[in-house]
Amino acid sequence: MPERNVTRTLSVETPSMPGNLGKVATAIGTVGGDIGDITTKQIGPFSTIRDITVHCENEEQLQQVIQAIESLGNGIYVRAVSDDVLHAHIGGKIHMTKRMDIRSLADLRRIYTPGVANVCQLIQKEPEKARFYTSIGNTVAIVTDGTAILGLGNIGALAGMPVMEGKAALFDHFAGISGVPILLDTSDPDEVVRTIKHIASGFGGILLEDIGSPHCFEIEERLVEELDIPVMHDDQHGTAVVTLAAAINACKNAGVDLQSAVVGQIGLGAAGLAICRMFLAYGIKQVYGVDRRMEAMQRLEAYGGMALSSIEELMQKCDIVIATTGVPGLIKPEMIRQGQVVLALSNPKPEIEPEEAMKAGAVYAADGRSVNNVLGFPGIFRGALNAHAKKISHPMLVAAAEAIAACTKEGELTPHPLDMRVHQAVARAVEEVALLEMQEREIQ
Amino acid sequence: MPERNVTRTLSVETPSMPGNLGKVATAIGTVGGDIGDITTKQIGPFSTIRDITVHCENEEQLQQVIQAIESLGNGIYVRAVSDDVLHAHIGGKIHMTKRMDIRSLADLRRIYTPGVANVCQLIQKEPEKARFYTSIGNTVAIVTDGTAILGLGNIGALAGMPVMEGKAALFDHFAGISGVPILLDTSDPDEVVRTIKHIASGFGGILLEDIGSPHCFEIEERLVEELDIPVMHDDQHGTAVVTLAAAINACKNAGVDLQSAVVGQIGLGAAGLAICRMFLAYGIKQVYGVDRRMEAMQRLEAYGGMALSSIEELMQKCDIVIATTGVPGLIKPEMIRQGQVVLALSNPKPEIEPEEAMKAGAVYAADGRSVNNVLGFPGIFRGALNAHAKKISHPMLVAAAEAIAACTKEGELTPHPLDMRVHQAVARAVEEVALLEMQEREIQ
Repeated sequence: MPERNVTRTLSVETPSMPGNLGKVATAIGTVGGDIGDITTKQIGPFSTIRDITVHCENEEQLQQVIQAIESLGNGIYVRAVSDDVLHAHIGGKIHMTKRMDIRSLADLRRIYTPGVANVCQLIQKEPEKARFYTSIGNTVAIVTDGTAILGLGNIGALAGMPVMEGKAALFDHFAGISGVPILLDTSDPDEVVRTIKHIASGFGGILLEDIGSPHCFEIEERLVEELDIPVMHDDQHGTAVVTLAAAINACKNAGVDLQSAVVGQIGLGAAGLAICRMFLAYGIKQVYGVDRRMEAMQRLEAYGGMALSSIEELMQKCDIVIATTGVPGLIKPEMIRQGQVVLALSNPKPEIEPEEAMKAGAVYAADGRSVNNVLGFPGIFRGALNAHAKKISHPMLVAAAEAIAACTKEGELTPHPLDMRVHQAVARAVEEVALLEMQEREIQ
Repeated sequence: MPERNVTRTLSVETPSMPGNLGKVATAIGTVGGDIGDITTKQIGPFSTIRDITVHCENEEQLQQVIQAIESLGNGIYVRAVSDDVLHAHIGGKIHMTKRMDIRSLADLRRIYTPGVANVCQLIQKEPEKARFYTSIGNTVAIVTDGTAILGLGNIGALAGMPVMEGKAALFDHFAGISGVPILLDTSDPDEVVRTIKHIASGFGGILLEDIGSPHCFEIEERLVEELDIPVMHDDQHGTAVVTLAAAINACKNAGVDLQSAVVGQIGLGAAGLAICRMFLAYGIKQVYGVDRRMEAMQRLEAYGGMALSSIEELMQKCDIVIATTGVPGLIKPEMIRQGQVVLALSNPKPEIEPEEAMKAGAVYAADGRSVNNVLGFPGIFRGALNAHAKKISHPMLVAAAEAIAACTKEGELTPHPLDMRVHQAVARAVEEVALLEMQEREIQ
């Protein structure tokens, strides 16, 4: 369960005198509220009104925050509490929009009958023209069966729609891609593959999203095999790309040579296994992994990694340790080896707090806050679509990770997710590798 | 095959003197070119450049048009020929657009993680909230299997995409609905129904489009039965709605009482049968039909219509005759009964030309140019979605037809398709009936 997912905006009135905002902020912090943006809405001669966004762990904490502010007295009031998150979702976050104006009969005849018939016939004769004269080449289906929505688990595809719409909004914003949520009412790999294949010709790519493990593996593998458009499960490879980028920077910051390092992955779920594959694809020779499930360990070995029987053994063996188990505090300080790089990525609470790991001797430690998938998938698909790639290969993903790493400011782990240059760099890197791969295939 | 689907824009230069445009227009008309819009692009002291849109039957005729203009001489030239239709289609006609800005981390946290988790959990608890906090309630899937694209036949779903995108653009423009094209690679009713049901939870309605007969009947009937969102095959009911509206106005213009009239339908394809059902739903007691296929005749009788064995018999019996056979000239002048209303709707050439029918004694005659589906489907779905209707009933469709008829200018057959008030009136009428029907169901 993600924490702090109760976000509210409080409209707070204070006397117009310096010092009052500090009192309010302190009151909020004292009861554990986390402050987001503060916007000054109104400055009067006597009183000032500010919108203060507060993230709380639950409703009770929110009530404590409100009470803490109100009990300051001296003209300080909470005038309104609004749920901005919910408000932003009214009517949904996306809309299929026409790309031209329809003002005259001539417009209508151009984009609809009779003009459209000409375009249909052209595509009938030369199907590859559909990429240019329709939106297909710029459209990615965002497909979920709702079995692993965020950290919330199997809550169903309908309840997952806000996430799919979020992804579609991010596709539009960062990559100019038209993202279409597809909610499936089945998790059976046969049915999922069959359904997606039946509707695939309308899309230029497929982003699989929040599909649970282990059926996500079979679904992705079969679709990659059977379709000739890019298919990617973001929870696997998107996460792995950003993790590799973070590891590249962590090693750089720590002065560790990643290429010759021994890497260990604790937790071999969908993300964990994909992270192992990504390090192998990056050229790292020794990638170890550990998980309670035999099936996951076998999968790791099939990918070329090496399974270990205990976390302790892994912690001893590896220069760089990544954890994605969802188990807070799993890594004990005494397990840390001197000079180790530790990325404990589970949200909201990591396997070990970075400060704790550093105190125990790690040379660099971070938690999952910097590993945001949004850094990866928009640019990856933009690049793949630009290149007309039929698959998203590991070299393309490694290129994406390196581009993300290269865009990061000195000393940080990953770039700011809203920086457009990152997404453009990822797209360019992925497109270049895709074009090279296609050329190589033609030469062969 | 639709004719005149070669549309080009000619950039024509003439000396800046009155009379030259007349010469050019005459030259175009002489060889059979049909002129669309004319836009003056540049007026110089010596020469004027105009963009003239010309509709031709084929490439040869286009060449004749160009030659006819160039041979005028005296400073008259065709400077460029551009394919505006194709140009308008580059990159496709639709795009999935975010509905809010993403400028800050706060925005990102609101519409994506962690904020979005809250909305997911709300929908998990109360699934009906998905209608308000996602785009689902305003999104209609536009589904085709490509077996009956326009008049072009079974050219495949991919080649039909420009039509689906056109419909999506019209949904957006006229009704603010988010239309999502879904291209199916199967026409098997079992597979189509199964596929659509697997993805239906992401949509507020399903518009079936350009699906061939007879499998369109089974597909629509099963989806209407098995889904609890509005499903409508536009080639059936959308066409029937606009036809009923045209018939209402034709009778008004001719001074014929439609309600007590005998109606005959020539051609019982998907549209023809739906037209018969619409007239029956409108309250007309005697609806006759004729078709070469026994199956179609049986279907008509199952709907409550009466099958006849010949066109001659139908023409004798009926006050109002509608034809949708696709066979030009099928109705001979000698078949026309005095005082008959004749709507020969096949495109591009009707079963009988209106002038010919009038000369033969019809009191009112028209061809299919006024019966444009775009008058129906946007408002019908807007109304159904507004009312949260689970089905689109015949009374809702009749209300749509009456609204279209009521919006028509005195003496005309149907309103201008770009008149927004029509679409609003249709939506309102459909919503009202839907709400009434839902109230009645609750009372029972």
